[in-house]
Amino acid sequence: MTDVLHSPSILEVALGDRSYPIHIGPGLLGDPQWLAPHLAGRQVMVVTNETVAPLYLDRLTRGLADDLEVRTLVLPDGEATKTLASVERIWDALLAAGFNRHCTLIALGGGVTGDMVGFAAACYQRGVAFVQVPTTLLAQVDSSVGGKTGVNHPRGKNMIGAFWQPRAVLIDTDTLATLPPRELSAGLAEVVKYGLIRDADFLAWLEAEMPALRGLDVAALTRAIERSCLLKAEIVAEDETEQGVRALLNLGHTFGHAIEAHQGYGQWLHGEAVGAGMLMAAELSCRLGWLTEGDVARARAIVEAAGLPLAAPAEMGVDDFLAIMRLDKKNLDSRLRLILLRALGDACIHDETPPETLAALIEAFPRR
Amino acid sequence: MTDVLHSPSILEVALGDRSYPIHIGPGLLGDPQWLAPHLAGRQVMVVTNETVAPLYLDRLTRGLADDLEVRTLVLPDGEATKTLASVERIWDALLAAGFNRHCTLIALGGGVTGDMVGFAAACYQRGVAFVQVPTTLLAQVDSSVGGKTGVNHPRGKNMIGAFWQPRAVLIDTDTLATLPPRELSAGLAEVVKYGLIRDADFLAWLEAEMPALRGLDVAALTRAIERSCLLKAEIVAEDETEQGVRALLNLGHTFGHAIEAHQGYGQWLHGEAVGAGMLMAAELSCRLGWLTEGDVARARAIVEAAGLPLAAPAEMGVDDFLAIMRLDKKNLDSRLRLILLRALGDACIHDETPPETLAALIEAFPRR
Repeated sequence: MTDVLHSPSILEVALGDRSYPIHIGPGLLGDPQWLAPHLAGRQVMVVTNETVAPLYLDRLTRGLADDLEVRTLVLPDGEATKTLASVERIWDALLAAGFNRHCTLIALGGGVTGDMVGFAAACYQRGVAFVQVPTTLLAQVDSSVGGKTGVNHPRGKNMIGAFWQPRAVLIDTDTLATLPPRELSAGLAEVVKYGLIRDADFLAWLEAEMPALRGLDVAALTRAIERSCLLKAEIVAEDETEQGVRALLNLGHTFGHAIEAHQGYGQWLHGEAVGAGMLMAAELSCRLGWLTEGDVARARAIVEAAGLPLAAPAEMGVDDFLAIMRLDKKNLDSRLRLILLRALGDACIHDETPPETLAALIEAFPRR
Repeated sequence: MTDVLHSPSILEVALGDRSYPIHIGPGLLGDPQWLAPHLAGRQVMVVTNETVAPLYLDRLTRGLADDLEVRTLVLPDGEATKTLASVERIWDALLAAGFNRHCTLIALGGGVTGDMVGFAAACYQRGVAFVQVPTTLLAQVDSSVGGKTGVNHPRGKNMIGAFWQPRAVLIDTDTLATLPPRELSAGLAEVVKYGLIRDADFLAWLEAEMPALRGLDVAALTRAIERSCLLKAEIVAEDETEQGVRALLNLGHTFGHAIEAHQGYGQWLHGEAVGAGMLMAAELSCRLGWLTEGDVARARAIVEAAGLPLAAPAEMGVDDFLAIMRLDKKNLDSRLRLILLRALGDACIHDETPPETLAALIEAFPRR
């Protein structure tokens, strides 16, 4: 695997004149060749958070040429900061610096940073360039690719946002060395998701490699990132604005968003909520006669092996779930749309779950 | 002209799968056939302001079918309310009503309403449908067409926004009957602009018809609106996101934005500032040797005939103008880009005005 580790791989998200590369490999931060081609003009603002700044901000800015006008902005960390107020801080900083519409924003951090910076870029002077430099596994395999940007509203997750594609995604696998185990597991939830929705072979590979992944084996992580990004890039290229197949990427997310919203953003990590949510979707798929008990047991085993919760919060009742799920963006008018599994590796969009079946699943699902 | 008045004309903004019609004529409000085809789902929110609501809100909602879930939101009026806080009120109302991403927003009002509602639609759940129902001449001939949406920031006009196209533009010419003379003149500034930048014949027609237009002659206003929308639709179809020719629509706007920002939003109407700004651009074009003194006199005469200011605010010095103009969105890096006139009816983008020439023009321009 040595060659893989020293020659960054390049994938492409094929979106016509908005196509962009995903570079995956070690040592990308601090190496000027990766960022320079994707800057729109001479004005560059790097936005990161208080956790990532001391680790990687200097390394990234070292990779920016001397003739650029570089500003940095460090925001607080955590899902609770993913608000319009944080995005306003970015806009204020851009305007205070006199940045024009040919500037470039660089998002250095996890999914919260990428979503907020992408949204700030989408709406600053009606849209400026941005580059994703994700430093968490979750952001590397999911949120940094595909152009979904936005912030939370007290009434719902990601309710305010835009589709706005980055100019490039730079995934420096070295950054995973500092990732806390809980964040690693949260990222693995989205990796497992790709196997469950679309790639049974990848799922089987993950079952075998999960100990290596959790042990931060770089070769295994690199392969997991590449495969995840490839699957995501394919889906996004097919359906950029989620009119159809892209919705499959939301496996576990409607249940998961309900958990996050009910618990207060940041109590459960997004990936943790998705982990439990995918199991709820798997169990519901079994109740509908699509998955076998054995399939569900496999799903549960890999979620457990990834270090993710297998149960919902103790205090969440059926009504708590349903009330929040009904406002979810993925619902068409009043029908509850869920992503379910016809088989392991084969997801579908389903809006005909009988209400009593859904309520029974939520009622019976383990609590912790 | 009777037929024109009773058979609404239809123009199209040709943008591929985002193409949309502009309907122009009397009696469109309250007639269900114009709105119904452009609604995305059953949830509809009409957003208007305190001035327009008592005049036209009932008439518009009468034109919506009984089986729709219709909400209304009335915001304060005026450019000073074109803020992110107002857009947040729209988002809060949408979420409080449980509106999903298949809802439709209807903007009923002038340019401020249209810009804010369009931006709210662009970012609600990453983008929902909206329809423009402009009730001022300025909004009918300019801001409702072309998908520029956004709000002001204390540091600059329209600094936060998005390109987001409406599903349709419904221009009910009956609404002009209640338009105050000052607002009518402000709208005529943008009408004159089309003649100056692209259509010398239209300019000559406007010179002849200005008394009729200011006298609210419906046939003349309808023709002015149709021609203006046609010219705007052509330019937008050619260059949706202002990479090139669309910038010509900003004739007078860089000077005008400086006046608006310096005076405080809402003190000068946008069209008034554009009127004075177009004269500044014309006089600068003359200093650069492109326009004759006679051309400038014609430009001044038509701006005067439209009832617009011929002078800048007394208290604005050269430095006041330059400081604000340098932050304008239309500037590439540090070069000041201006829209100037090579001839009446032929605008160009110019970024090589010698700073001393610009300063001398601003210094010499009349103050009031």
